[in-house]
Amino acid sequence: VSEDTVQDGALEEERALLDAATLAWRYLQSAERYPVAPAVAPGAVSSRLGLAAPEDGEPLASILSDYRELIEPALTHWNHPGFFAYFATSSTAAGVAAETLAAATNVNAMLWRTSPAATELELRACEWLRQAMELPPGLLGHINDTASTSTLIALAAARHRAAPGIREHGLASAPPLAVYCSDQAHSSVDKAVALLGLGLGSLRRIRSDDAFRLDPSALEEALERDRAAGRTAMAIVATIGTTSTASVDPLPDLGELARRYGAWLHVDAAYAGSAAICPEHRALLRGVELADSLVVNPHKWLCVPLGCSVLFTRGAEPLRAAFSLIPEYLRSDDDAVNLMDLGIALGRRFNGLKLWFVLRHLGLARLREHIRRHCALARDLANWVAAEPGFELAAPTSLGVVCLRALPSGCGSSEEIDAFNTELLRRVNRRGVVFLSQTELRGRVALRVAIGNVQSVRKHVETAWQVLRLEARHLDSGHRAPAQEDS
Amino acid sequence: VSEDTVQDGALEEERALLDAATLAWRYLQSAERYPVAPAVAPGAVSSRLGLAAPEDGEPLASILSDYRELIEPALTHWNHPGFFAYFATSSTAAGVAAETLAAATNVNAMLWRTSPAATELELRACEWLRQAMELPPGLLGHINDTASTSTLIALAAARHRAAPGIREHGLASAPPLAVYCSDQAHSSVDKAVALLGLGLGSLRRIRSDDAFRLDPSALEEALERDRAAGRTAMAIVATIGTTSTASVDPLPDLGELARRYGAWLHVDAAYAGSAAICPEHRALLRGVELADSLVVNPHKWLCVPLGCSVLFTRGAEPLRAAFSLIPEYLRSDDDAVNLMDLGIALGRRFNGLKLWFVLRHLGLARLREHIRRHCALARDLANWVAAEPGFELAAPTSLGVVCLRALPSGCGSSEEIDAFNTELLRRVNRRGVVFLSQTELRGRVALRVAIGNVQSVRKHVETAWQVLRLEARHLDSGHRAPAQEDS
Repeated sequence: VSEDTVQDGALEEERALLDAATLAWRYLQSAERYPVAPAVAPGAVSSRLGLAAPEDGEPLASILSDYRELIEPALTHWNHPGFFAYFATSSTAAGVAAETLAAATNVNAMLWRTSPAATELELRACEWLRQAMELPPGLLGHINDTASTSTLIALAAARHRAAPGIREHGLASAPPLAVYCSDQAHSSVDKAVALLGLGLGSLRRIRSDDAFRLDPSALEEALERDRAAGRTAMAIVATIGTTSTASVDPLPDLGELARRYGAWLHVDAAYAGSAAICPEHRALLRGVELADSLVVNPHKWLCVPLGCSVLFTRGAEPLRAAFSLIPEYLRSDDDAVNLMDLGIALGRRFNGLKLWFVLRHLGLARLREHIRRHCALARDLANWVAAEPGFELAAPTSLGVVCLRALPSGCGSSEEIDAFNTELLRRVNRRGVVFLSQTELRGRVALRVAIGNVQSVRKHVETAWQVLRLEARHLDSGHRAPAQEDS
Repeated sequence: VSEDTVQDGALEEERALLDAATLAWRYLQSAERYPVAPAVAPGAVSSRLGLAAPEDGEPLASILSDYRELIEPALTHWNHPGFFAYFATSSTAAGVAAETLAAATNVNAMLWRTSPAATELELRACEWLRQAMELPPGLLGHINDTASTSTLIALAAARHRAAPGIREHGLASAPPLAVYCSDQAHSSVDKAVALLGLGLGSLRRIRSDDAFRLDPSALEEALERDRAAGRTAMAIVATIGTTSTASVDPLPDLGELARRYGAWLHVDAAYAGSAAICPEHRALLRGVELADSLVVNPHKWLCVPLGCSVLFTRGAEPLRAAFSLIPEYLRSDDDAVNLMDLGIALGRRFNGLKLWFVLRHLGLARLREHIRRHCALARDLANWVAAEPGFELAAPTSLGVVCLRALPSGCGSSEEIDAFNTELLRRVNRRGVVFLSQTELRGRVALRVAIGNVQSVRKHVETAWQVLRLEARHLDSGHRAPAQEDS
């Protein structure tokens, strides 16, 4: 390989990294130029991709050009300000810059010594978040990819506390265990319970009240019934901001019951926890001092790119006890935390960098502004819905989430209303200016508008509402006849 | 907020993304300017970081400048060509460009429809890898963060096949199960077995032979013993490229036993699987047609940034059966795969992009060249070690991994030799030009040189060998007296 070839390669790489940065910047500025969700059928993208990896390398410029033409237009644009489905997320320049550097250094922070700065930065950025949320001192945060993983890890630690012998002897050796959560809790609780080998039959989904909050008296009955039957209460999962309606379980009551029955209290605040950086939302976490673990996802509402779910626990020890495979006599006395001991994955990306960049660049004041704007927009939308004939709120509005339902004229049965709303959602989303999702509440379809993207402002919520009303009117006047429009 | 402020913000962001790209490019070019591992004490980085997140945002330029001054120098440089510890990894411009775009689009490919291109690209890039490795058709690959997660998912699917009732009724309802692997298998097997609730007591670590390969006759004895005792063989884990020595288990024999005893065969080829893209290394995977699952990490030897562990299974169904929470009647008939159904995490980063970028930009021919160069360098080093008085090979050399041991003159007991080698490693690593790790083989310390970074060439391996000899000589002549040098 000649000197010139090496030089050419280096220049090509520099050019490509700058071009990728420019593409990224343009995307952050203008995802809005795309329909929120692409009009592609399954397999359409695949059919345009090569059938096999090339033998000889291709220029980075061609790959970037294919990215621009084939891939980017066929994405669902989570960073589009009209993205109101699931929980909206945000990418920002600070996060993208951090991910660029994390990929270049490519450090693996499995042990402190395999990347001191990566480990210390992750722990410090999580500590900043702890303070900003006013969580109790002594809670130690570390980063996982998703809340599913964080909740699994928390419940594994809970299992270890309830029956430490399981680690060596398995569940066969343990007393029967039970886990409690609301009927509104996230499916990651089911996944964790199944994976841990407890069996879905040991998960008690307790009924929620009219506002979709776990009912403590129903929980107490279940705990009492299980205790009488010789079953150990392993964990109670409280949800602060449920997936369907962002409802908030009564944490003080759940904490009191957890203490009384010796259960681990895990708080799933993946979505709503971020709001606690605003003093007026601190009440969301009242009672958190009773929690053994709490998960919050800065990659949801705090403008950090995906792959930033922070799990807080009371120090590292409960996780080390459940996960570390280092024999007792090798545990170090110093305070250096080895991230690999805190969960499932051995390898650890440099995930702290993006949390640190974003918290510093946006600052708490601007992050609070975003959260306040989203909550105010949700309240406005809720008021419009409540005031509009032919629409109803499907749940009390909480934080940035509005659940609503269209009520077609003369349409009686709830099956018909459900079908109407499902079709309405399809038509609204097909327009490409906003993207909503649906959920099921007490067996009935509800449409969800989750406002949380950093670029979402009043006009985007107004558009969502306009399109919803327009399509509902069309659909209603067509008496649910086959759609007249081109598909 | 005025038009001008918005404009200024956009310009600042563009500038920062371009600066981050330039920093990344310089790092890729010149990580070698740093000592491989930084000379910092625990807490040294933290002490220079702010104690709390700022109220008001800071300019991106200051954050990048702090990154350059505080963080980058305190990283362990995995992309340094003298990094020979654990398994070496590589970042490349193609991978960094892809991660920049993945962070900007920030799509969550949990469902096909939440990002069609991200889902299809991930599956296609994995299919390219399947073909390049000549794995059997019908194996479907998807990406997890690490091999620990991939192996956990595979063993969860194995558990489901052995006792589907566990999902609902838990392990209490199941017959006793057992998992088999070699005494050289990775600790992620222990972690998975513990997490799945089987108990570490149900993991059979079978003795390996003189070349650290699982001994099939010992495995058969264990299987037979367990069968006689009424225990079901849930899974056999074969390791292709063990962590300590890169030894290779006899896959055809293990596959045959798995079939005979009805066990799931999981192949941990996280490291060595990549070598199968070279025809001369295909024999590594002879017998793979008997496997139920296989994990290979392109983020190890295929120049893809961290967070790219590919798990292959026989279609999606075994994973859906174990993980999907969608009731049977809602499963779609079409072939659209929803990545969330294939494992633990609901949210999915856009991980396929980096695999696609890297395979296309480097091409298979150049990737093969790297692997061949690393293997040849390992053979050379092994020859130098074998020919050098005062050194010995601690294991047969396999692929890019050389295990060696210094033998000080007149130093008799194996405890003394162990202490000598541990101190030798400390001194070698302290010099900062190379970074090695150590392992334990049959209870004795061995030093590991794992050659695998894209920039590692002959001179770096020569340096490693030179420093090893030099420091061994110093240490030997000092009769293991306290080090004379400044620390």
